Amino acid sequence: MKDNKLDIKRLFEPRSVAVIGASSHKDKIGYKIVENILAGGYASKLYPINPRGGEVLGLRVYKSVDEVDGEIDVACLAIPAGLVFDAVERCAERGVKFIPIISSGFSEVGNIEGEKKIASYARQHGMRVLGPNIFGIYSAKVSLNATFGPRDIKRGNVAIITQSGALGIAMIGKTAAQDIGLSSIVSVGNKSDVDEADLLEYLIHDDDTKVVMIYVEGIKDGERLVGTLKQGTRKKPVVVIKSGRSERGAIAAASHTGSLAGADEVFDSIMGQCGVLRAESLREAFDWCKFLADTPLPSGQNTLIITNGGGIGVMATDACEKYGVKLYDDAHTLSEIFSTVTPDFGSTKNPIDLTGQAAPEDYRSALGAALKQGNINAVIALYCETALFDVEDLSSMIEENDVKYKSEKKPIAFSILGGERIEGCIDSLRKRRVAAFDDVYEAVSCLGATYAYYRHLGRQSDEVEEADIDVSSIEGLVENALKDGRSFLLAHEGQSVMKAAGLPVPKSYTARGLDEAVRRAQEIGHPVVMKIVSKDILHKSDVGGVALDLENTDEVIDAYQAIIRGCRMHRPDAIIEGVEVSEMVESGTEVIIGARRDRTFGPVVMFGLGGIYVEVMKDVSFRSFPLDRQEVMSMIKEIRTYPLLLGVRGEEQKDVDGIVDAIVRLGTVVRKCYGISDIEINPLVVYGRGKGVRAVDVRILVGK
Amino acid sequence: MKDNKLDIKRLFEPRSVAVIGASSHKDKIGYKIVENILAGGYASKLYPINPRGGEVLGLRVYKSVDEVDGEIDVACLAIPAGLVFDAVERCAERGVKFIPIISSGFSEVGNIEGEKKIASYARQHGMRVLGPNIFGIYSAKVSLNATFGPRDIKRGNVAIITQSGALGIAMIGKTAAQDIGLSSIVSVGNKSDVDEADLLEYLIHDDDTKVVMIYVEGIKDGERLVGTLKQGTRKKPVVVIKSGRSERGAIAAASHTGSLAGADEVFDSIMGQCGVLRAESLREAFDWCKFLADTPLPSGQNTLIITNGGGIGVMATDACEKYGVKLYDDAHTLSEIFSTVTPDFGSTKNPIDLTGQAAPEDYRSALGAALKQGNINAVIALYCETALFDVEDLSSMIEENDVKYKSEKKPIAFSILGGERIEGCIDSLRKRRVAAFDDVYEAVSCLGATYAYYRHLGRQSDEVEEADIDVSSIEGLVENALKDGRSFLLAHEGQSVMKAAGLPVPKSYTARGLDEAVRRAQEIGHPVVMKIVSKDILHKSDVGGVALDLENTDEVIDAYQAIIRGCRMHRPDAIIEGVEVSEMVESGTEVIIGARRDRTFGPVVMFGLGGIYVEVMKDVSFRSFPLDRQEVMSMIKEIRTYPLLLGVRGEEQKDVDGIVDAIVRLGTVVRKCYGISDIEINPLVVYGRGKGVRAVDVRILVGK
Repeated sequence: MKDNKLDIKRLFEPRSVAVIGASSHKDKIGYKIVENILAGGYASKLYPINPRGGEVLGLRVYKSVDEVDGEIDVACLAIPAGLVFDAVERCAERGVKFIPIISSGFSEVGNIEGEKKIASYARQHGMRVLGPNIFGIYSAKVSLNATFGPRDIKRGNVAIITQSGALGIAMIGKTAAQDIGLSSIVSVGNKSDVDEADLLEYLIHDDDTKVVMIYVEGIKDGERLVGTLKQGTRKKPVVVIKSGRSERGAIAAASHTGSLAGADEVFDSIMGQCGVLRAESLREAFDWCKFLADTPLPSGQNTLIITNGGGIGVMATDACEKYGVKLYDDAHTLSEIFSTVTPDFGSTKNPIDLTGQAAPEDYRSALGAALKQGNINAVIALYCETALFDVEDLSSMIEENDVKYKSEKKPIAFSILGGERIEGCIDSLRKRRVAAFDDVYEAVSCLGATYAYYRHLGRQSDEVEEADIDVSSIEGLVENALKDGRSFLLAHEGQSVMKAAGLPVPKSYTARGLDEAVRRAQEIGHPVVMKIVSKDILHKSDVGGVALDLENTDEVIDAYQAIIRGCRMHRPDAIIEGVEVSEMVESGTEVIIGARRDRTFGPVVMFGLGGIYVEVMKDVSFRSFPLDRQEVMSMIKEIRTYPLLLGVRGEEQKDVDGIVDAIVRLGTVVRKCYGISDIEINPLVVYGRGKGVRAVDVRILVGK
Repeated sequence: MKDNKLDIKRLFEPRSVAVIGASSHKDKIGYKIVENILAGGYASKLYPINPRGGEVLGLRVYKSVDEVDGEIDVACLAIPAGLVFDAVERCAERGVKFIPIISSGFSEVGNIEGEKKIASYARQHGMRVLGPNIFGIYSAKVSLNATFGPRDIKRGNVAIITQSGALGIAMIGKTAAQDIGLSSIVSVGNKSDVDEADLLEYLIHDDDTKVVMIYVEGIKDGERLVGTLKQGTRKKPVVVIKSGRSERGAIAAASHTGSLAGADEVFDSIMGQCGVLRAESLREAFDWCKFLADTPLPSGQNTLIITNGGGIGVMATDACEKYGVKLYDDAHTLSEIFSTVTPDFGSTKNPIDLTGQAAPEDYRSALGAALKQGNINAVIALYCETALFDVEDLSSMIEENDVKYKSEKKPIAFSILGGERIEGCIDSLRKRRVAAFDDVYEAVSCLGATYAYYRHLGRQSDEVEEADIDVSSIEGLVENALKDGRSFLLAHEGQSVMKAAGLPVPKSYTARGLDEAVRRAQEIGHPVVMKIVSKDILHKSDVGGVALDLENTDEVIDAYQAIIRGCRMHRPDAIIEGVEVSEMVESGTEVIIGARRDRTFGPVVMFGLGGIYVEVMKDVSFRSFPLDRQEVMSMIKEIRTYPLLLGVRGEEQKDVDGIVDAIVRLGTVVRKCYGISDIEINPLVVYGRGKGVRAVDVRILVGK
């Protein structure tokens, strides 16, 4: 795996390509691919392969890979599923590096074994498989269009990775129509081997790629993807569109791809944590990619709206709040700069309203003033068509300013509302890479994505937090449980795990007799709680096996006797091991924290407020683990009930640091102890600041 | 006001129009309007008016309205603000009916008095004012383009009412470019007199108008608008776009229009209650209007997705959940219908996946099968561009099916993803009124709006609920408070209002001596609460003036004596009126209900769960009052914490009927008793089903 980075380069920049299944029938995929490679202008060696030999498009057809003299970096397979394994064996003998398998008929139709066999054979023989069930790969770097999609692909600086083939082919057309140039587009299909993380490792370092867009339905190795995305987003923006957001959609997605769609809220949180920009619709994703590819990053978040209509200015203000764009607010500076360029009945507050009387010159002055002002980092310029503007004049004013703003690294987005000529003007500006939109919300959404990325880059990445825990004693407890054939830990084992993880639990002892119970209660300090300990008694309260709030030695003695009497009476056959004497936990704010090994993303931690907040309101947040302290804080702050932890109604602030520590400890347990699949502390009782937390009840699942 | 409906017709269908301020200078608004009226083909009488006389565009210019012989239904004023009042006086003398005042320089720049004077003078003289600060009015019915906007307005069946002039003019161009025809567009500007409700009264009954779109920034007479919208939406869909959704946007809106933007959540709830479709962006509003104007309403909610790509099918499924579109789910029927038209590796579950191999014939079969199946009410047809489809063929297949589906009253929306030729195909289909989109979310959003409207029409509108309350005794209490110079009611007055409104409060009496206290406690039933009654003692607990949970006569006697002793000792000078003996309220689920006279919408009721749910989570719902029982239920169900009322964790279901009743009673109080501006019951304690509610604490504000 260490050589992936070196390796993957040859998939994008092969020195030679073979097409196995090359055909001279025009309606065959094997013809289309050869045709596209030739038309695309790939300058290195191309070897069509078909046992029948002959010629295709003027090229000699080799009867097998063995006939080829030179090295083969990439061999595309466009042959029936049943013939693929044989072909892969031949490729292995010839030392082929990458095998894009175009053919379908594998896991997507239930042929999981056939697919696995091929992928593992390839890996064992030093090869990597792309697909199967793909439309191919395009790489602008070497002008390679090894796809059966459109012949003309617009060259540019957006890279696309797509799990859906049909969608991917349509995206090639759509991006060209929208003037979004591609540096590459790769179909990953069933992802039997090469996945998004592999491809990202190349794309992160590819200078021709400014933005990466990923269309994904399901994720296989989420833990590795998270790591790669975290690295990738420090270099360039990554836009992800994942279908199956809704419950119903997730079911539809699972039924049509090999990989299961993860719970959407987990996916969403983790993408946010990785600094990925998640788009909802394809339109949004394309808009963001184009804007991010063409627009410089700002140096701050002060945004100004300039408009000739009040109404549209207010709409832009609404959109800014929706998309997290901060408006510049220094009334004094604004009035100073703009009072000379704004009519008396306009507004020098943000949005700056030049009024319906504004001519191109007024926009020029206002945009010029905003450009000069160092505190303004980005501008949204709005225009409602009036009789005062000639479209040509408007267009040249916009283009002029676009150039100036770009050279000063200030993002600018134009939104223009009007008739047919205005629409034509927007189209032609967009072709010239000017960010012009016909809807305010779209313009602001793009700026919002830019700022989300800007803020991600600005985050101080602390050292990753990990707690010092006693792994070996936890693993011992897990082993015992597995030996017993259990998939869960018993209560006292759970307590031991908490202690080994350094998580504060209520003090508790099992007393074997009355004297010990009295002594332990004194040791712990009154009040205490007592409970029967017996494997034979599951519902302790039903047999009088529980006593709460015992305030002194007399009460402890009475309760001990009552518990033993009650249990003997109701369950004369039960073996009684003793009576548990525990600290009576003071009441505080109850939260839930959890950690589990997600089958998509590996260790994931969860946080929410206890009781009905989680059950009814689903008010929880998730993160992939490990993470830094700042990110733990962000997951705590993310829940809607966070203000309760700050103290409402005159209550004191809660010990949020204690929660952070507990989350890190829980995450560390799941990360380091492979036998533990799931821990939930419910409730974790949280006291005032500096007064700590108590893990009152813990549930732990184990597995292999 | 009674004649408004008759009256307003003459604004849309005038038999004669005067343009006061008509000019022969081509850059004057007074020229532009005359030019547009002529170019538009208005066939009735047109009188240009200007003291200078002469000619404009071949028409005689009258020196004043007095020179005109016939009646004048509409006189547009395009003269400086300072001359408007005089002109209005002249119009009154001549018996003009409607005066659209194009001129600006009124309340929008602070000249509120000048505007008021004109509007009230006009009303007193039987005239109605449109504006001021408008671009005019277009009415297709009489081919009248009395605006200074674009000359060419596309005729059709969408009516637009707009508060923003700049935006309105740009919308004329935009709708034409998007092939949305207009039946009328009216600029209401400062709304000194004629407002949305007036215009709606005409548009509701106008057969040429299929959809009404309203752009609004602030509302003046919300109560009347709500009434008109409720009537209107039973006849045709109304799409509203209101800027100032965000807090910041609301401030920006308030600063630039005369009317204050109401709290957005109240506005949003009330629009929903009126069956109005609220669009977020202009794009969404235009999309919805076009779709609603061109598409029949369905007869049920079973929607089917047909696709040639799994990925895009999943995205459509996500979008259906987002926009409230229900997917047809009968697996047996689906398999029966579609197994013959779907390849083996496709899917006969919804989304029906014809796979990338699908040719036009396959779509024809699948769409034909769905059309025949009575249980399928609407279809979303998705298509990712492949090599197998010729664009011409695609286009004719789509158009064919569009016609068939419309004739069967089954909505169908197409979403097509592909290159330049596909985009051209979408454009040309849209021009021919076929609902073709380039983004899945947009297609589904339009269908979602259609279904929202369909559901609104299907709602059983019960009789409006109103409670039988004792208005005169409440008004007496209010008068007393106002006489005392108070803006609030005292606790015992609040209790009396609750009783007069028929709202259950804890039983409570003021006892003047020990014997009475004992007797009252027995009457109420133990346990009881006792509190000192003295205007001189504000903080009752501080002086020992409160005793809780008194379980028998002995405890009542002890407590009574302790209370009197404590108060005498701590406050020897206080005049003690007695001791309040009250029912000790059992604990239950605490909710908040409120009613107030909103300055925009009149009586508004509010509901939320008590305590932190309202304070921290802002989990509340609003409705305009009066309303029917079903709508009260919908406002209760709307809050996120509603499941708590159904009983979670094994608790019994709460007395939701009791809450409904309490909300109706509170709303009735505010509606009928004008002196009361605000009531809040917090908490209203709710018990199990059939066990009622108790208004434990009530706060009432009064005003004139």
